[in-house]
Amino acid sequence: MDWQEKWLQAAVISQISRPTLLLDEATVRRNLLRMKTRADQAGVHLRPHFKTHQSHEVGRWFREVGVERITVSSVAMAEYFAADGWKDIVIAFPLNVFEIPAINRLAEHVRLGILVQDLVVATTLSQALSHPVNLWLKIDPGSGRVGVEAHRFDLLDELVPALQNLPHLNWQGFLAHAGHAYRARGREQIMQVHGDYLEKLFPLNARYGGLISVGDTPTCSVAGDFGPADEIRPGNFVYYDLMQVQIGACGREDIGVVMACPVVGVNADRQEVVVHGGAVHFAKDNLNEGGITHFGKAIGRAGSRGARTLDGLLLKSLSQEHGMVSAPSDVLSQIQPGDWLLFHPVHSCLTADIMGRVLTLEGKAIEMMPRP
Amino acid sequence: MDWQEKWLQAAVISQISRPTLLLDEATVRRNLLRMKTRADQAGVHLRPHFKTHQSHEVGRWFREVGVERITVSSVAMAEYFAADGWKDIVIAFPLNVFEIPAINRLAEHVRLGILVQDLVVATTLSQALSHPVNLWLKIDPGSGRVGVEAHRFDLLDELVPALQNLPHLNWQGFLAHAGHAYRARGREQIMQVHGDYLEKLFPLNARYGGLISVGDTPTCSVAGDFGPADEIRPGNFVYYDLMQVQIGACGREDIGVVMACPVVGVNADRQEVVVHGGAVHFAKDNLNEGGITHFGKAIGRAGSRGARTLDGLLLKSLSQEHGMVSAPSDVLSQIQPGDWLLFHPVHSCLTADIMGRVLTLEGKAIEMMPRP
Repeated sequence: MDWQEKWLQAAVISQISRPTLLLDEATVRRNLLRMKTRADQAGVHLRPHFKTHQSHEVGRWFREVGVERITVSSVAMAEYFAADGWKDIVIAFPLNVFEIPAINRLAEHVRLGILVQDLVVATTLSQALSHPVNLWLKIDPGSGRVGVEAHRFDLLDELVPALQNLPHLNWQGFLAHAGHAYRARGREQIMQVHGDYLEKLFPLNARYGGLISVGDTPTCSVAGDFGPADEIRPGNFVYYDLMQVQIGACGREDIGVVMACPVVGVNADRQEVVVHGGAVHFAKDNLNEGGITHFGKAIGRAGSRGARTLDGLLLKSLSQEHGMVSAPSDVLSQIQPGDWLLFHPVHSCLTADIMGRVLTLEGKAIEMMPRP
Repeated sequence: MDWQEKWLQAAVISQISRPTLLLDEATVRRNLLRMKTRADQAGVHLRPHFKTHQSHEVGRWFREVGVERITVSSVAMAEYFAADGWKDIVIAFPLNVFEIPAINRLAEHVRLGILVQDLVVATTLSQALSHPVNLWLKIDPGSGRVGVEAHRFDLLDELVPALQNLPHLNWQGFLAHAGHAYRARGREQIMQVHGDYLEKLFPLNARYGGLISVGDTPTCSVAGDFGPADEIRPGNFVYYDLMQVQIGACGREDIGVVMACPVVGVNADRQEVVVHGGAVHFAKDNLNEGGITHFGKAIGRAGSRGARTLDGLLLKSLSQEHGMVSAPSDVLSQIQPGDWLLFHPVHSCLTADIMGRVLTLEGKAIEMMPRP
């Protein structure tokens, strides 16, 4: 299969010696162009979430296809991207009042969107602002996580007009994240979540006007119509991962990052391989497939002994620095210390975050945001 | 309770605005002095594992109580501590042959211990070394993870003499880690694991001579006699965490680090608090207590409205940047945006690693190893 060979035969593997997160620029650019085209065709703005890649360089690839608005998950991340010239940034995280001074500094030169979920916090913000910012109200469209539930008109009828009238705050509208799309499996279930949350957002738009911002990778990867929404904010799609494969948002060939791990031991008795690649490299989100919990899935062996696709190898446990891989005897005989095993990560956002750096298949180091 | 007040009333909280890992220097120094005293009384060397703190500064506190030998989990970490003057370092991770050039550079000026688990890798190392290093054989004392099982004399009778005769390698002996001590609950079970693994190591010492190195935080926190061992290598004890409390290795008052998180939302209907503090701050190891899985446990509220101990608040889920805390109504009424919630981490090694920096209660920033 072509998509495997590209990774397994990458020349960059001969240049590394430690666990390394590899990135295929062609796949990543294809993912982002595809999403931009999808947004254009649906008539919505793409405001991609940059928390997955956290990189100036990857951000510029978005700019090249015409993206001008972005989403981030912290004030620190807004500062990082503002420093690279981004001028329209929504911080899609409920306001932390201790960061108002930093928000004031940013708002001097950035069109900044701030998210609130209650009037007290919004009023505190309004009173402390020296520069106007855009205000979004966080709506829970059924995820059961953060925000005012979309059907609570008893609350919203008081809250929305009050927010619309706060000084220094430019009312934008409603921002929702369908976190429950991550519980869907298959296109049909994804489209059901998508239909459900849009149905909850239509009445908000009809009753109060304003903009609607939605977005999560599963529904944005599958849907073509975003109803009342003006913009979509998917993030993970830039890299995708095994979780998105399980959900049905992408195929394995769409995954744009791969963790390369040196093999440091093979235990024939236990049918196990030990790799250098642990919790501090993969992070610890896991998936359950067919009753087996795992932290990554191998695509194959690489290195000086030659590339070989290997199917069904699961990273079944992670210590701080090393990972244990279960392998049947016939596969185990293909692996020895000095080889590399390449894995798809379960959750690329957390893997990229903890690694803090990625290397393209052409050997270019892609720096990411320093730890705040 | 005194140990709670120290954290909740720390003046440093008025100086921070983002999720911050706090460290109580007095507790940490007490933990490390206690372990040094325990090792001295047992007549073994303390070779603490530095993967938990990954900090020059905290390393120096060990030096002040007479520690000269250390353990690390990667070549990168050995380089980091060698740069601060440590001269006797064991890399307690199976050799990754791609790192032999880095090992050669380190071995020029450091007494370096390298861990292997098979002859092929050891031979590769021997042939590529330009400076001698110390060689340890990794033994599995019952953890079922990495190393040659302690009872496999059929293997060891050939392997040990071969290792003893490799050029450039100074044979040291056997290094074991009782990872299964983490499955113990209570002192009795910890001591049972301890007794079991020592029983497996005695025959190795009797048959082949050489040194024995053991060590994990649970058994080293409880046991006073280490049988045939010459040195112990616990690491986590410097900070401890909720996992060690559940195992029975320490009390909550011994935990030396606390995560301070800004409260950004309170949802009375759902009896939930939203904090700024997610997977990128805590990492994602979890504990099950009484059927409930959680990622951290609050010790109380801090901030300008005054300190208040709050019991039983669990961090029940983590997104990338935020955490959800369940709270009964009477506790919920004590919490509002603008407060801080302070949490004990489940696994301090991973929390410190992902944060990359800690701040003492006196406001001193403690830098850690940069990401490799």
